[in-house]
Amino acid sequence: MKQNISLNNLEQFFPQNFTLEKKAQAQTLFLKKLALKSHDFYKGKIMTLPKAGIWGYNWLNVWYTPGVSAISQAIKKEPSFSFDFSNRGNYVAVVSDSTRVLGDGDCGPSGGLGVMEGKAMLMKYLGGVDATALCIDSRDKDKKHSAKKIIDFVKMVEPSFGAINLEDISQPNCYEVLDTLREECSIPVWHDDAQGTGCVTLAGLINALKVANKKIEDVKIVFLGSGAANTTIASLIMQAGGDAKNMILFDSKGSLNKERKDLKEKTAYYKKWELCCSTNPDMIESIEEACKGADVLIALSKPGPNTVKAEWIKSMNKDSIVFVCANPIPEIYPYAAKEAGALIVATGRGDFPNQVNNSLGFPGILKGALMVRAKKISDKMAIKAAYAIAEVAQEEGLDQDRIMPTMENVAVFAKVAAAVSKCAIDEGLARINIEEETVYKKTLEDIMQTRNILDELYGKAFIKEPPQEMIDTCLNEVIQELETIS
Amino acid sequence: MKQNISLNNLEQFFPQNFTLEKKAQAQTLFLKKLALKSHDFYKGKIMTLPKAGIWGYNWLNVWYTPGVSAISQAIKKEPSFSFDFSNRGNYVAVVSDSTRVLGDGDCGPSGGLGVMEGKAMLMKYLGGVDATALCIDSRDKDKKHSAKKIIDFVKMVEPSFGAINLEDISQPNCYEVLDTLREECSIPVWHDDAQGTGCVTLAGLINALKVANKKIEDVKIVFLGSGAANTTIASLIMQAGGDAKNMILFDSKGSLNKERKDLKEKTAYYKKWELCCSTNPDMIESIEEACKGADVLIALSKPGPNTVKAEWIKSMNKDSIVFVCANPIPEIYPYAAKEAGALIVATGRGDFPNQVNNSLGFPGILKGALMVRAKKISDKMAIKAAYAIAEVAQEEGLDQDRIMPTMENVAVFAKVAAAVSKCAIDEGLARINIEEETVYKKTLEDIMQTRNILDELYGKAFIKEPPQEMIDTCLNEVIQELETIS
Repeated sequence: MKQNISLNNLEQFFPQNFTLEKKAQAQTLFLKKLALKSHDFYKGKIMTLPKAGIWGYNWLNVWYTPGVSAISQAIKKEPSFSFDFSNRGNYVAVVSDSTRVLGDGDCGPSGGLGVMEGKAMLMKYLGGVDATALCIDSRDKDKKHSAKKIIDFVKMVEPSFGAINLEDISQPNCYEVLDTLREECSIPVWHDDAQGTGCVTLAGLINALKVANKKIEDVKIVFLGSGAANTTIASLIMQAGGDAKNMILFDSKGSLNKERKDLKEKTAYYKKWELCCSTNPDMIESIEEACKGADVLIALSKPGPNTVKAEWIKSMNKDSIVFVCANPIPEIYPYAAKEAGALIVATGRGDFPNQVNNSLGFPGILKGALMVRAKKISDKMAIKAAYAIAEVAQEEGLDQDRIMPTMENVAVFAKVAAAVSKCAIDEGLARINIEEETVYKKTLEDIMQTRNILDELYGKAFIKEPPQEMIDTCLNEVIQELETIS
Repeated sequence: MKQNISLNNLEQFFPQNFTLEKKAQAQTLFLKKLALKSHDFYKGKIMTLPKAGIWGYNWLNVWYTPGVSAISQAIKKEPSFSFDFSNRGNYVAVVSDSTRVLGDGDCGPSGGLGVMEGKAMLMKYLGGVDATALCIDSRDKDKKHSAKKIIDFVKMVEPSFGAINLEDISQPNCYEVLDTLREECSIPVWHDDAQGTGCVTLAGLINALKVANKKIEDVKIVFLGSGAANTTIASLIMQAGGDAKNMILFDSKGSLNKERKDLKEKTAYYKKWELCCSTNPDMIESIEEACKGADVLIALSKPGPNTVKAEWIKSMNKDSIVFVCANPIPEIYPYAAKEAGALIVATGRGDFPNQVNNSLGFPGILKGALMVRAKKISDKMAIKAAYAIAEVAQEEGLDQDRIMPTMENVAVFAKVAAAVSKCAIDEGLARINIEEETVYKKTLEDIMQTRNILDELYGKAFIKEPPQEMIDTCLNEVIQELETIS
């Protein structure tokens, strides 16, 4: 069986007699097998390359000693020149201590490299932003993961980057790290698991509400899971007009409410405690009870498919909206949620409709922030980004299965960048002033340049095609494995 | 006046009536002016780029979630897979706290970015090694530069890189940082100012001695300057056969000798103290006295041109060898040293013969160390690299003005890489075993791939030529400035 190397028809790779669920399972397994082989084939996925010309050997004396001394002296006099004379202004560090790598938990200090390099790759491919993975060892002398160490590290490395992207840091360290760094750094510190997921989920919610003809200020929302992502989503929805009194959040110990003394006492959980105080005025304790008559369910809890019960959805209000975003398997499969009455189902998966994909947000958000040399990325900037994302989907045409824009539409990244840069200027968080239109154009230009360069590298085989056999072997293995456990 | 953008005929840019010294001055000034304009034009000089193909959007699900989860799980089980599945195995962090940036002193945390990005560029262009600049803020709460903070930082970031290149860290922190990290890290920690300069200087010395027909074990050597570089040079020369009893080192307070209580007391200076004990048995105190009858003078002190006196050289032995390597201006100009009787003069400058250029060493050394996943770079490895460099120059043909190989000869980097990898294997410092020949070929291949990619990027104007006007303006400004101060 010879399959297309582009993987464009991936869903057709698998036998027709596979059920939908089995196909999804097969696809994930195939992608993982292919990941192992292809990461090994390319030995990772990001390289560095000069972006300035070496037109002759004497240019090394411009880029390095003695010429470069002028750069050192200039930055010494005026540190902000570092944004003009180095790549700092377009360079993001993707920092993680690999303690909560996607669905794989604590993977050891190097364990997040695959994910963080992937993020760096997306940053460049989708946003024209240079990025590097910095997976760090955050353990202190007692071998405990230390928020302070992560904070110290980022503050030390800040002078080399235009922004920091924090990623996959476990709770509760992630809260202290983010809050401290956002306060103490003078470049943006972006936590994609929190603000990023919040932004794209809000974008999806804005459009889902449009399709369902409901208003953000009226809807009753239940949150399953109260990690960094869901607590931030709740907060952004409130800032975008949602009513805290209509919201109920759940963590592994039950609903957030004023009686949760376990959260009140731990300062590291102060964000959750704030939500205990502002939401769930009726002190509802069970998820079954909370779902009754709810308009929206936002689950970011543990992989399904049976984490969210069909009965809960059945008890929701008419035209209900369900976000089931656990990876790799949603808390309930979309077909099951729809059978239970949901009007709109969104997941984290690319092989189902309505993928709530952080990749729609962070590349443009960081590009926009970098272009105006923003000092931070405020929640308002994230909300503006959400509206920009939602608008692109609206232009593409909304329906129940199309609340998010497609990744192929590069306009989304440029529009997000423009919206974010403008908001940064409006909020007084920008160091320089650039027209929205200029940010839009430059972002598009940088994205297209990246892709055009890659096309050149493919064409000249500087980046080799993976062997056909690699694809076929992975596929055959998957089919055999899954056929035997029919 | 329209000049060639390649700068290949740089020495002909300046008026014929300029003296040699004035031409050298004009050239440095021109390179600095051009550096300012061209760094601003390109906004730095290093970018990141995918090195693995994105053959369709579904490949993002291989490189990122859900496929990448297989990589996290694999590295979680076996951390050494990080070298196979990410770019770690070919990735170097160029770390500096910018406290001693080339000749420009403490430039503030971002101040070294021009130099460190330059180093990253050279790493890729000359060695096929990916690298990134990490300029860090090493100040503690009391605003003092802290060796401990640098050490902590590097140990935290170690899981992301195959090697660390320490650079431009001021004394005495550089000693503690290097020694601690070399001991405690399980990847190479290279201090180019010390081991790197030591390696290329030793290479030059080996060939200079050949030309002068002298033996390393017999020659009397005077060192002017006892910083990280010169103390390491002295140590490498001893390990390569030089006799400590024939050596005398000087720092700003006089000669190193057993009476130097100021050095004995400070633990940070223990390396200098060791040299106080092993060298200068006759307790010679003045540089004039030391130079009498010396065969070799190695100056790495303060920029000249009058730091080394002609009289000192006149008093040296017949066929004397003089290394005057301060930047940007050597301690004495080569013509003056030759007039004073030196047979061979080497400097740090590319516009004079015999440039002792670290760029001949580190790219190949790091490439070789990375390819066998070395745990460290021993002095023996550096010495083997020195012999490899010296051999390439011998193949090119030695004479008084050609003791170093030319940078244009890419063979030098591949030969160094091969020699270093073999030595790492022999010393039990390699994690994997690769044939010398394979390392040689792969290094050449990676270097040529980088250059071929760059040629493509130039050809398609992805990297634009600098405007002709930029070159001409810089040149005209320099000539005007220097003509007025004739």
